[in-house]
This record gives sequence, structure tokens and C-alpha cells, in this order.
Amino acid sequence: MTTAPRIVTVRQNILKTNDHTAAGNRQTFRAAGVRAINLASSPGAGKTALLERTLRDLAADIKMAVAVGDLATDNDAARLRQWGAQAEQIVTGTVCHLDAAMVRDVLPRFDLEALDVLFLENVGNLVCPSSYDLGEAARAVLISTTEGEDKPLKYPTMFNTADVVVITKMDLADAVGFDRELCRENIDRARPGVKVVELSSRSGEGLAGWYDFVRGQ
Amino acid sequence: MTTAPRIVTVRQNILKTNDHTAAGNRQTFRAAGVRAINLASSPGAGKTALLERTLRDLAADIKMAVAVGDLATDNDAARLRQWGAQAEQIVTGTVCHLDAAMVRDVLPRFDLEALDVLFLENVGNLVCPSSYDLGEAARAVLISTTEGEDKPLKYPTMFNTADVVVITKMDLADAVGFDRELCRENIDRARPGVKVVELSSRSGEGLAGWYDFVRGQ
Repeated sequence: MTTAPRIVTVRQNILKTNDHTAAGNRQTFRAAGVRAINLASSPGAGKTALLERTLRDLAADIKMAVAVGDLATDNDAARLRQWGAQAEQIVTGTVCHLDAAMVRDVLPRFDLEALDVLFLENVGNLVCPSSYDLGEAARAVLISTTEGEDKPLKYPTMFNTADVVVITKMDLADAVGFDRELCRENIDRARPGVKVVELSSRSGEGLAGWYDFVRGQ
Repeated sequence: MTTAPRIVTVRQNILKTNDHTAAGNRQTFRAAGVRAINLASSPGAGKTALLERTLRDLAADIKMAVAVGDLATDNDAARLRQWGAQAEQIVTGTVCHLDAAMVRDVLPRFDLEALDVLFLENVGNLVCPSSYDLGEAARAVLISTTEGEDKPLKYPTMFNTADVVVITKMDLADAVGFDRELCRENIDRARPGVKVVELSSRSGEGLAGWYDFVRGQ
């Protein structure tokens, strides 16, 4: 396509602008003492389910809130509010990822000084969110046992920016014939040495490792 | 962001160029008597598994081939070739969808005159592939029982361009507490009246409805 070079230039400009805005967000979080965690995964890997469980289990311990991105609906924010935490929906329309400006624009709705942790639940997409720094302190990438063990190799740009990889739906591992060793090997190939947590938000197994990560331990 | 209007313009140009190329592909398919089917879904919803089963079951009946898109690896093409069909991998790099030019460029590797059906297996992504016409005769959107019934509402741009919605992994429906009625209701809200097929590539249940669609019936 003849438009290709121009597209590349515009794309570089977008990412440069985003990085600048992300740096501002990071400064804001640091000043307020908030740990921001960016959660990314395929649709349906269980980001919201894990956050529901986290909000419930850690409520007595730390002060948490969520900004959640979706193309349409505020279903996720409504689910999360049930657990007593503030949850603000970012409706992205046709945009397939959160960017730093969307996060910056939603921040005035939170009392950051009162928070310990702010979760940034990204749009369900294993590709595009990888390129957009939101200013987070850490990035968690989720993969469910039902998706197939090859996903870290097929979506390397997402996995190789992860600070932790969370394998979700471990309670279904046997039912779907999940090959744990192969999955961990593929994660390690995509992102050598990355921390991996295996858990089930339904059964509760493995959550302790995730909670350590949430607390920054 | 100050760059927004320019981004919109470039995006419109990209889509216009894509539509033009897609029209050329459509003409090519029509002239060769090939039914091209675009398959889209989340990562891990079972596109490749369904195609493996289809290639095996319909081999005696119709002549099929596959062009498959992934960011990295040729795992899917290798899986599909096991069943004796031609499968060509399109490695998209950091691009989160197939576009019409990628398809156009891979077509010379196929003997289209000898084919009845060409499957275009898209990158696993419920957002971006929706905007790119590949020149297909029909678009199939897959959703698995393990992803959650709300996905048609959360990813409307994908579902409202579908000619058929395929609910996969029906063998896991009970294990994950899949709410069939709610899922079908949400599909119908996103795309009123669309054909829905429920199946399991593993158990084989429901495949007949999919095979009718493949044959254009």
C-alpha cells in the first residue's frame, strides 16, 4: 500500500505522545503512593473474575479501586462495584486498547491519596494493549487453561512486556487437558525468567501468589 | 491528543484502500468458483481445532485449503497440514488482524481453480479484524463456552458483522456453568436474526450445522 510510510510515521507519533502521557500518569501515581497494575488478556480469560475475588479478599487489608476499559457496556464496572470498591468504566468505542490519555482523563474521578492500589483492567485483546504504556507500576498478563498452551509464542508482544503471567482457570485444567509444563515452557521462551502464578478465581487455589504481587512483594 | 484528526484521516484512507483490495479479492474468488470464509474469534476459542476437524470430515466431499494469520509462529499452518490440505501461514508481525492486501499476496500460492472453499483464519482478536473486509463470501465469528456469555455485547463490532456465530467447546458447557439462553440472547442483541451454530470440535456434536454453512447451504 502506498500509504504505508505515512502510517508508520503517524503510528510512531501516537506512541510517542502516549509515552509522554504515561510518564505523567506514572508521576501522579508515585506522588499519591498508588501502585497501578495494568491487567491484559484475551477476552474471557478472567480479568474481572480475578479482580472481583481480589477486591473481596483484600478489602480489609488494602484500599483498592479499578478503572476498566471496554468497547461497549459498563458490565464489568457494575460487577466490580458489588464488592464495595470504586470502579470506573472507560468506554473505548471502536478502540481496541486503553491508552495513557484515557487513563489520565479518568483519574480525577478517584481520590488517589486514599488508595493503595489502582487496577487498570484493559480491553480483552492479546495484541494491541501491549504497545500502550499506561503509566502502570507493573503489568499482569493473564492466560487461561482453556486457551491453549501456545498463546505466549503466538502473541509474543504481549507476553514479553509482562511483569507477571497469571495462568487462570486452573480448576478446569484437567477437563481441558491443559499441559502445564508446556505452557510454562512457552511463557519462559516469550519472557525468560518472568514470575508465573497459577490460580483459580473460582476455587481460590493459588491466589496467595497473586496477592503478593498485588502488594508489590 | 492533538494528533487525533490526522489519525482519523489516515485510518479512513487505510480502510478505503483495504475495501478496494478486498473487492479485487472477491472478484478473484468468484471467478475461480471459490467460497472464501473469514474466521474470527478471541485467541484460543478454537478456530484451528474446528478447521482441523472440518478438513478431516469433509475431505472426501469438497476441496479445501486455508490461509492462516498469526503475529508469530507457523504452528497453526503445521497443525492444519496434518490433515492433507494446503495451509499457508501469513505472519503479521505486530499487526493485529489480516487485511485484504495480505490475503491478495498469499493467493498466488494456491491453485484457486481446483478449490471449493478457502478458509481465511484471522488473528485471534475480537476487535480489529472486524474492520477489515478480506473479500470473503461469509464471515464466521466463534465464541467459546469458556469465555463468558457477555462477549457479544462487549465486542459488538465483531459480532454485528458476522454471517454465522459459532459457539464452540459445547462439551465444556456444564463444567464452566455456561448459560446457553443468555449467550444466544446476547448474540441476537448484537446481530438480530444471525444464524447460530453450537458445536464441539472435540466431541463432534453440532458439526452438521457448521458443515451446511461451509457448503453455503
